[in-house]
Amino acid sequence: MAIPTLEDIENTHQNISPFIHKTPVLTSKSINAITGADIFFKCENFQKVGAFKFRGALNALQGLNREELEKGVATHSSGNHAQALALAAKNMGVKAYIVMPNSAPKVKKNAVLGYGAEVILCEPTLKAREETLQIVVEKTGAIFIPPYNDYNIICGQATAAKEFLEEIKDLDVVITPVGGGGLLSGTSLTVKYLAPHIQVIGGEPEGANDAFQSFSSKIFQPVVNPNTVADGLKTSLGDKTFEIILNYVDDILTVDDTLTIQAMRLVWERMKIIIEPSSAVPLAVILKYPEKFKGKRTGLIVSGGNVDLKDVLPMIS
Amino acid sequence: MAIPTLEDIENTHQNISPFIHKTPVLTSKSINAITGADIFFKCENFQKVGAFKFRGALNALQGLNREELEKGVATHSSGNHAQALALAAKNMGVKAYIVMPNSAPKVKKNAVLGYGAEVILCEPTLKAREETLQIVVEKTGAIFIPPYNDYNIICGQATAAKEFLEEIKDLDVVITPVGGGGLLSGTSLTVKYLAPHIQVIGGEPEGANDAFQSFSSKIFQPVVNPNTVADGLKTSLGDKTFEIILNYVDDILTVDDTLTIQAMRLVWERMKIIIEPSSAVPLAVILKYPEKFKGKRTGLIVSGGNVDLKDVLPMIS
Repeated sequence: MAIPTLEDIENTHQNISPFIHKTPVLTSKSINAITGADIFFKCENFQKVGAFKFRGALNALQGLNREELEKGVATHSSGNHAQALALAAKNMGVKAYIVMPNSAPKVKKNAVLGYGAEVILCEPTLKAREETLQIVVEKTGAIFIPPYNDYNIICGQATAAKEFLEEIKDLDVVITPVGGGGLLSGTSLTVKYLAPHIQVIGGEPEGANDAFQSFSSKIFQPVVNPNTVADGLKTSLGDKTFEIILNYVDDILTVDDTLTIQAMRLVWERMKIIIEPSSAVPLAVILKYPEKFKGKRTGLIVSGGNVDLKDVLPMIS
Repeated sequence: MAIPTLEDIENTHQNISPFIHKTPVLTSKSINAITGADIFFKCENFQKVGAFKFRGALNALQGLNREELEKGVATHSSGNHAQALALAAKNMGVKAYIVMPNSAPKVKKNAVLGYGAEVILCEPTLKAREETLQIVVEKTGAIFIPPYNDYNIICGQATAAKEFLEEIKDLDVVITPVGGGGLLSGTSLTVKYLAPHIQVIGGEPEGANDAFQSFSSKIFQPVVNPNTVADGLKTSLGDKTFEIILNYVDDILTVDDTLTIQAMRLVWERMKIIIEPSSAVPLAVILKYPEKFKGKRTGLIVSGGNVDLKDVLPMIS
């Protein structure tokens, strides 16, 4: 399979639409007044499992044949991809094996278990996760569904921007967070296919700025010792997401965690919706670079709303 | 003026509609699974100023004549009514004087100031608030707009239930929080006018259960030393709201704060929306009395989303 085409994205959207939420687009006069921009928030925090990740996971599963589905699917993740894959598998009556670090919060483990997946715990290192997944795959024959570096995943994530552009006309710029790059790469494809004059920007935490480094130097640079409150954005780009981002994204801008927390607080207080720290990064970018967004119709994809209140509350209180 | 008729409520809705949000109705499969009820959340936390109070304040102002409007309007409040009146006055180009206790959080004072109202601080006692308001009214000639015990206010609040019943068909029961009774009395009028078979229930904190006491004994009993996290529900019924509640409401059920906080947390986590403690009381009632709501299409009016994160976060973390 190659980089998704517009037709791929359209077909995917048609296939997954009956099973996903068409998430609402919200605006906030007071945040517009503060930023000077005209912001539209595409609220994937209201998506199933509370994050856009469900789109990609579902599309990846729909791309498997019956024989593959019978073996089940597997991944390692402590985050939204774990829940997304577990629910997508449940919806399709497929067995899911989720490798999670034993340090993962109980609430996340329970969510995955609640979707009927089998949870396999391992040490909280990338090495242990990959090795454990390998064992699970060998033992069960389950198909590995990667979290972002996969064209079916990217194609699924691309459908959020499709809905967005169909609903909100005349956007000047679209901004998403960037971690592994699934959402940003998918968004950039959709936007440049449908309305190439719209700018596409990725927002990234300074403490995990591998996408910024790779994008600026045009040489892939994985993140080393990421350190940010935006826990969904600690991952490095993959080769597939990097290639798309390099060719279709206009800019990547970084912000520090203080501004991200301030942005998250602003959304909680003014919009009365819960967004996770990763989702606050794009608004933090707008706060940091107001001149880039002033008076512009700015589409912001809110990636998710899965926060552990215990972790997040001390930050913003 | 007398108890609002259906025609009054319909006219009011028509008059205020261009200036208010038609707030969304949300559902949550997981909360339905937990409670066994089929709950529809009418989200007035997304209303202007973040609470249903804007409906009533706007209607009260629209009921004044030009001479009265020229003198301005006044109230005492540290809560949502203060912001509601300030914004309604701003929208109509009218001067607003808001008496607030000097203990009110800075964020609330700033919100009222942000709407262009004049804030007059006083000692944090009901006596000081009423006396200060009296002085302001005498000095300026401003018209006092009470927070709930007023038929125009009640009629404005009644419009939330009108939108709700028009959007969600075949409800079996509607439940709202009850503090001063503006929302509950208005809701009960609308529901009993339009669909008298629908049950109307008020949810009240045990620590401020004057409405429950008054309703049960049929004798007005003001609250003494209210003690609850649901700070919007510490007020007593007024004679007008009490009369309506006695005649149009089916039941008032009380819950303790522990369950209210649990309910609030549930909504934050599962629905990704921010609701204030007062708004969690009806869901707490459903959690406490599941048999009363089992399998029932239950309409729940979420009264508002104005929380001081500093105060609320320690409760739920």
